[in-house]
Amino acid sequence: MAELEFYDVTLRDGAQSEGISFSELDKKNIFELLDNLGIDLIEGGDPSSNPKDAEFFANTKSSKLVAFGSTRRKDVFVGQDTGILSLLEANTDVVCIYGKSSVSQVENVLGATKDDNLNMIGESVAFLSGRGKRVIYDAEHFFDGYKENPQYAMQTLMTAFMSGADTLVLCDTKGATLPTEIYDIVKKCVEAFDGAKIGIHCHNDIGTAVANSLMAVSAGATHIQGTLLGFGERCGNANLSTIIGDLALKLNMKTNVNLMSLTNTANAMAEICNIILDPSMPYVGAAAFSHKAGTHADAVMKETDTFEHVKPEEVGNMRHILVSEVSGRSVIVDKLKLYFPFINKSDPKVQDILNRVKELEKEGYQFEGADASFLIMAQKAMGTYEPSFSLEKYEITESNPDGINKATVSLKVGNEIKSATADGNGPVNALDKALREVLSEFYPEIENVSLIDYKVRVIDSASATGAMVRVSITSRDGYRTWTTVGVSTDIIKASWKALVDSLEYRLSIKE
Amino acid sequence: MAELEFYDVTLRDGAQSEGISFSELDKKNIFELLDNLGIDLIEGGDPSSNPKDAEFFANTKSSKLVAFGSTRRKDVFVGQDTGILSLLEANTDVVCIYGKSSVSQVENVLGATKDDNLNMIGESVAFLSGRGKRVIYDAEHFFDGYKENPQYAMQTLMTAFMSGADTLVLCDTKGATLPTEIYDIVKKCVEAFDGAKIGIHCHNDIGTAVANSLMAVSAGATHIQGTLLGFGERCGNANLSTIIGDLALKLNMKTNVNLMSLTNTANAMAEICNIILDPSMPYVGAAAFSHKAGTHADAVMKETDTFEHVKPEEVGNMRHILVSEVSGRSVIVDKLKLYFPFINKSDPKVQDILNRVKELEKEGYQFEGADASFLIMAQKAMGTYEPSFSLEKYEITESNPDGINKATVSLKVGNEIKSATADGNGPVNALDKALREVLSEFYPEIENVSLIDYKVRVIDSASATGAMVRVSITSRDGYRTWTTVGVSTDIIKASWKALVDSLEYRLSIKE
Repeated sequence: MAELEFYDVTLRDGAQSEGISFSELDKKNIFELLDNLGIDLIEGGDPSSNPKDAEFFANTKSSKLVAFGSTRRKDVFVGQDTGILSLLEANTDVVCIYGKSSVSQVENVLGATKDDNLNMIGESVAFLSGRGKRVIYDAEHFFDGYKENPQYAMQTLMTAFMSGADTLVLCDTKGATLPTEIYDIVKKCVEAFDGAKIGIHCHNDIGTAVANSLMAVSAGATHIQGTLLGFGERCGNANLSTIIGDLALKLNMKTNVNLMSLTNTANAMAEICNIILDPSMPYVGAAAFSHKAGTHADAVMKETDTFEHVKPEEVGNMRHILVSEVSGRSVIVDKLKLYFPFINKSDPKVQDILNRVKELEKEGYQFEGADASFLIMAQKAMGTYEPSFSLEKYEITESNPDGINKATVSLKVGNEIKSATADGNGPVNALDKALREVLSEFYPEIENVSLIDYKVRVIDSASATGAMVRVSITSRDGYRTWTTVGVSTDIIKASWKALVDSLEYRLSIKE
Repeated sequence: MAELEFYDVTLRDGAQSEGISFSELDKKNIFELLDNLGIDLIEGGDPSSNPKDAEFFANTKSSKLVAFGSTRRKDVFVGQDTGILSLLEANTDVVCIYGKSSVSQVENVLGATKDDNLNMIGESVAFLSGRGKRVIYDAEHFFDGYKENPQYAMQTLMTAFMSGADTLVLCDTKGATLPTEIYDIVKKCVEAFDGAKIGIHCHNDIGTAVANSLMAVSAGATHIQGTLLGFGERCGNANLSTIIGDLALKLNMKTNVNLMSLTNTANAMAEICNIILDPSMPYVGAAAFSHKAGTHADAVMKETDTFEHVKPEEVGNMRHILVSEVSGRSVIVDKLKLYFPFINKSDPKVQDILNRVKELEKEGYQFEGADASFLIMAQKAMGTYEPSFSLEKYEITESNPDGINKATVSLKVGNEIKSATADGNGPVNALDKALREVLSEFYPEIENVSLIDYKVRVIDSASATGAMVRVSITSRDGYRTWTTVGVSTDIIKASWKALVDSLEYRLSIKE
């Protein structure tokens, strides 16, 4: 079997998902991430769509970079078509152009004849391949077009192939073709085009984009398009991280992807895109190997493959045994082992901690993702907690439109009481600054701690602005990343609790 | 073909997903939602697991309700097994019990012999079916068990069937069986058990739970288990809302589900679970029928089926044309039509609004989900905006641990300046209360407006607590729901902007 080729379209299709837009630096970082992961081809965007994209091509040199565009416009000489010319100017080894395969699309959307469209495909591919480019041809609406008029759909592929395209990508543009249909149609194309690489490009509108891609590979496709995290318009594109995991680990196929980096890359990608990675995403999600139910968690601790289809380490992920009200004592013991290696299930302290977890969860806490706050809470319950500081008082004043934002923090460290006042661009910022100002006198190491994510969740929405809120803060110090949680009806107080836990956690690590 | 039967496990498997737990009221509301949607069978939980679940069964009377449990324990007389007895006491017409199908699971996890396990299955099913229950048998780890030892796996099913189970549910417990394997194995079971209903229960660990369920139905399964929104441990259970859409609209199969309620039910379920419904979820997600890219959006406005596989109305969803920096003028015109029916693309105001969108998006605004803020902004740009009030000054004081939280708001309404001071349980709450206190003197209608969701997103995480934050507030007044957005480095100021937009939007509606 020919080697698989993965083609990521995050920088184009991904940028079309709701809530996502990329700066030039984002694009550069995403390109590097995908390159390092071992993705074979990376689409950089459409160089004719805007100057930002053109600049990106000018500044990125890589044999993996692909410029994307469409076949020439109707009634324009191919050598004068601005889109085609900008593909040439993008100066990549590989270009990908899309064209229409469906008669109704040709007639109703392009307003062209069937022959016009074939000429547009043929001339555009020939022009680019004649100038030394590897040309990938994306057959838009291919499956719908095939179902409508198989002869014409095949003719569009044949035209692209005869004009020099080496890869023919069958696109399920509306994302609604069934897995078995995908298999049958891909198989026909694989059989019809002996020398060509057949590709697949799926969307997830009926929830089967991953399965459809797998079916296409079983039918002989070797070029797989998608976005690493499944981003894309509407219901998204095929999720490449899932497909890669499936092909490598379930179908044992050879790929160029560095599987051990899959989870880290997915998280870094989410960070650049400023989204929280779906915790339930296969292979890479934070919950992909989480176990919560008492009996399941027990079984996994006994025999890991009872509820795990692969070892989390194979994809760079980790097993999580979740602490929650349904946890049993063995979960608590497992969590605590790192800090209290001699603790065991029958220790009454374990039951105390479990009770405290249940109490706090009733108030709105959630320790499932906040290991640092859990450990501080557990140390308190164990009686081994030594606070590095305690609050005497903080005070916040804000006035608008004057733009006054001031916080005064007084802390007791040892026997000393110290205060600091700071201005901030918001109350939490002012509080954070004043807190750090006092603390860094005593503990210079906290200067390296930065907050990298800050989330707020209204717990009891019906109470409107008076509702309980849960703030969770993720911090990093260059080596480690940890998450803490605070709950209050007061967003500043909840933030304060999570901030204090974050710094306390850092100070509890002796180096 | 036999009629399809949908079986929802949100109240058990769903409750095992990370971050989800249900109160008794939640369970009651979820049951009603699923019942009204037309789901055939609804699992209520395991009555032996905790008193809350037992109470739920005592208080819920419905022929659709199913009590879930396991086969009797090893070495316990079936009539004395507490789990089996609590299934009986749950007093439902239908029970579902799970048992083991895989030899290695029987030996290593149960510590039982193959015959022990068959006896456990047979006696448990016979005991319950002999007492008039319809018994559904969930064959845990069936596909893995079948691949390991097909004879034994089939024997476990045969035992359940001969003992009175009318439905044999094949579970892909680890969620890692491939679509083609699912098809082949389900087909063998359908052929082997002529009088039984064959069911399917998939998990999504390799991203194919929906496709696997569809494959099972193609192979003859007629009972489909899953959770309405795909919640569940690890990577989730099969997403029933997607499967229902696919079977009804792509495979044209008859179901008892009221399709037009699908989106509303999904949203209501998300609200009870206190999660934001994944916008890219097929059929029901807010982005499932969203169009952002200029050319795509244009094409959809020309001919709706170019990028839509079903009409959004068929599943109670709506088409969204997204306003964003990549939008063209036709998108802006489409959005404005409701308010300015005579506006057209060449109006210079349209370009002004588009420019303003781009400017604000650079600052961190996002109008994609915030139609109310977009409309206010557009009215400002059109020069038709008449503010209902304007801010003179607000002032916030907070002090802890004293617990002081005070806000003073001075507004100008017409020519009058009015102030109010309010205490709150947090600064945003105090501000909200003071704001409403002043406003409701002039505009009593705002008393019905409540805030139902409040989200905070750190935009530029690297700036830590000094980062820009985007607050989005969803409000409701009994009839309508709308979302507004505010951006600032100051979370209180950002909240203020979103609050003001929310109330301004409500006041702009004349009834």
